[in-house]
Amino acid sequence: MAKVTIIGSGMMGSALVFPAFDNGHEVRLVGSPLDDEIIDVSIRTGRHPKFDVVFPDGVKYYHVTDMEEAVKGADLIIGGVSSFGVDWFGADVLPKIPDGVPVLSVTKGLMDTEDGRLLTYPELWTRRLEAQGLRKTICAVGGPCISFELTAREHTEVAFCGTDLDVLRKVRSIMETPYYHISITTDVTGIETAVALKNGYALGISLSIGLNKKKYGDDRAKYNAQAGLFYQAVREMGLILKYQGAGELENLAMGAGDLYVTVFGGRTRRVGILLGEGYDIDEARDILNGVTLESLVVAQRVAKAIRKAAEYGRVSLKDFPLLLHMDRIIREKASPELPWDEFRYVK
Amino acid sequence: MAKVTIIGSGMMGSALVFPAFDNGHEVRLVGSPLDDEIIDVSIRTGRHPKFDVVFPDGVKYYHVTDMEEAVKGADLIIGGVSSFGVDWFGADVLPKIPDGVPVLSVTKGLMDTEDGRLLTYPELWTRRLEAQGLRKTICAVGGPCISFELTAREHTEVAFCGTDLDVLRKVRSIMETPYYHISITTDVTGIETAVALKNGYALGISLSIGLNKKKYGDDRAKYNAQAGLFYQAVREMGLILKYQGAGELENLAMGAGDLYVTVFGGRTRRVGILLGEGYDIDEARDILNGVTLESLVVAQRVAKAIRKAAEYGRVSLKDFPLLLHMDRIIREKASPELPWDEFRYVK
Repeated sequence: MAKVTIIGSGMMGSALVFPAFDNGHEVRLVGSPLDDEIIDVSIRTGRHPKFDVVFPDGVKYYHVTDMEEAVKGADLIIGGVSSFGVDWFGADVLPKIPDGVPVLSVTKGLMDTEDGRLLTYPELWTRRLEAQGLRKTICAVGGPCISFELTAREHTEVAFCGTDLDVLRKVRSIMETPYYHISITTDVTGIETAVALKNGYALGISLSIGLNKKKYGDDRAKYNAQAGLFYQAVREMGLILKYQGAGELENLAMGAGDLYVTVFGGRTRRVGILLGEGYDIDEARDILNGVTLESLVVAQRVAKAIRKAAEYGRVSLKDFPLLLHMDRIIREKASPELPWDEFRYVK
Repeated sequence: MAKVTIIGSGMMGSALVFPAFDNGHEVRLVGSPLDDEIIDVSIRTGRHPKFDVVFPDGVKYYHVTDMEEAVKGADLIIGGVSSFGVDWFGADVLPKIPDGVPVLSVTKGLMDTEDGRLLTYPELWTRRLEAQGLRKTICAVGGPCISFELTAREHTEVAFCGTDLDVLRKVRSIMETPYYHISITTDVTGIETAVALKNGYALGISLSIGLNKKKYGDDRAKYNAQAGLFYQAVREMGLILKYQGAGELENLAMGAGDLYVTVFGGRTRRVGILLGEGYDIDEARDILNGVTLESLVVAQRVAKAIRKAAEYGRVSLKDFPLLLHMDRIIREKASPELPWDEFRYVK
C-alpha cells in the first residue's frame, strides 16, 4: 500500500482518487487556497460537491493549511490544480515536496516565451525550482479523460510523461487499474503540447455548432462542418508538435482523441458555441459567469507564440488559419464565420 | 457551363449533383445495373428515393442502358459506385469514357495484394486499363462528408487526388462552391488509404458504444472509452499510412476528420454497436439485412495485408491491436471486449 496525496481538489485531480483508492492506497485530498468550501463539504458529508458520485469511504480530506501533514510520508504527490493555479503550485507547493517523491501533474496548458516557444508546465516548474537550487521529479498526465467518467470507472486511456522511465513505471504501478490504462513516455513536450492544444482547437470546432445553432435555431448536429474543422485542427496540431520538436504520431493521435472528448463536453464546447452564435468574448464570459476558461488562455498563448515564430521565419502563418481565426475572435471580437477557403491546400 | 455525368446513383455520387448543379452545369445521373428502380422513381417524380431533399429541377436521369448517351460530350465523369461496384466500373464503364475526359471517383476502399500491400482503386483501375492498352485520368475524392448534409449545402471540406495537378485544378473549378471546399493533391495513395481506413476503424470505435449499451441497457455515451479508441485508431492509421509510403500529416488529419464523421452516423456505426452488444457477425448482418457493409470488407483486407506484411518483417503485429481485434471479431466471432492493455506503450 502506498500513500497518495492529491493537492488541488478540482475535477481532474479529485477524480484520480478513484484509481488510487481502488488500488488499496491511502488517499489524501488537499484543497488549494480556493478550495476551502469543497474540503469543508467533503469532510462533513463524505461527498465531493463537484461530483454526483459518492467518494470512497476512507479518503482523507485536508485544508490547504494542513498541507504539510498531508504530504508527510507520501509516495506520490498528484498536482491537481487548474492552469490558473500554476504559479501557486510552483511557488508554494513544489518546494515543500520532499526530495525523491515523484509528482504527477494533471494541469493542462502551455506558457509562451519571448522567443515564440511554448513551454510545458513541468518545464516551467523545473526551471523555477532550479533557480532556487531545487530539483524535483515532475511527471504529467495527458489523454482523453472526462473526470466524471473516471469516477464511474469507465475505461480511460492516458499517458504519463516524465524524464525518467523508472519513475514513470513506479507511478504507473501505483495508479493503473483494470479501467485506467496508462502508457509511459519521456516525450514530455509532445504529450503536454498535444493535450494543451486540444483545448484551444476544441474551441474552433465548437464554433461551427454555434454557427449552425444561429442559422437553424436549434442544436441539430452538422457533422460535415465539425469534421472539416476537426481535420484542419489535427493538421495544425501536427505542425505545432513538429515546431515544438516533439514526436508526432503518438502525440498527435492522443491529441486527436483528446480533441474528440473535449468537443463533446464541458466548458470549452460551451464557450465555442456561444462565440459561434455571435456573442462576443465578453458576453460569452458573462453568460458563463464564474466558469474557468482555460481554452481561451491556451488559444491566445499558442497564437502569440506562432505569430512570434513567424516573425523569426520559423513557421508560415498561412498554415494556421484556424488558430489565427480563434485568436481574432478572442482578441478583436472578429466575426466567427469560418475562413473555409484558407483551409484548402495544394500539394 | 460544363457537362457533368455521374455514373452510379448511390448516396455519395448522387449528392454531388448539388455542387455541380449549383455551378450552373448540365448534370446527368446514370444508374448502375442495380439502380434501375432509383432512376425510374427519379424520372417519374423528380425525387431521388434515397434522399428526403428534392433534387434540382433540370437534372437528367439515365438508365444504365443509356450510359453511352449520358457520357457524350461530358467534361467530367464522376464515378459514384460503392466498393461492391468496383469491378463493374473498371470493366464496363471506364473503357467507354472518351480519352482525355477526367474521371473523379467517390468509391472508398482498398484491395489487398498477395505481397501484403494495399492498392487504391484508382491504381487498381489504371493497372487493369493498361493491361488493355488504355489510359484514363482517374482522380478520386476523399474527406469527411455525409451525403445528405452535402445536399443541404452544409460546409464540407474534401480533397481531390490524382496524378496531374492541372487536371485536378480543372475538376476543382467545375465542382467547387461556397460550401464545397476542395484541396488538391497528387498523393493518391495517402488520401485513398486514409479514407478507406476510417471505415474500418470507425467500426472499432463503435464497438465501445455497443459494449456500454449492453452494460447499462441504454445508449448513454461514454466518451473516455470512445476517445481512447479514437486515439488508438489514429495511431494505427498513421502507421499504415507510413507503411504505404504516403505523406502522413494531411492524410492522417483527413482520416481523423473522416473517422469523426463516420462514428456519428451511418451503417458502420450500426454494425459496430451490434458487434459490441454481443451479436456475432452473422447475426449483425441479418439484423442489418440488405445494408452494404463496406467497413467489414476494408477491415478484413487491411488486416490481411498487415498480417502478410508482418510475415515479411515489414511491420510488427503488436502495433495493430485494434485492427487485429476487429479482424478476429469478423473472422472468428471473437468476443468484442477490448484489449485495452495492448494499446499501452512505453516510449
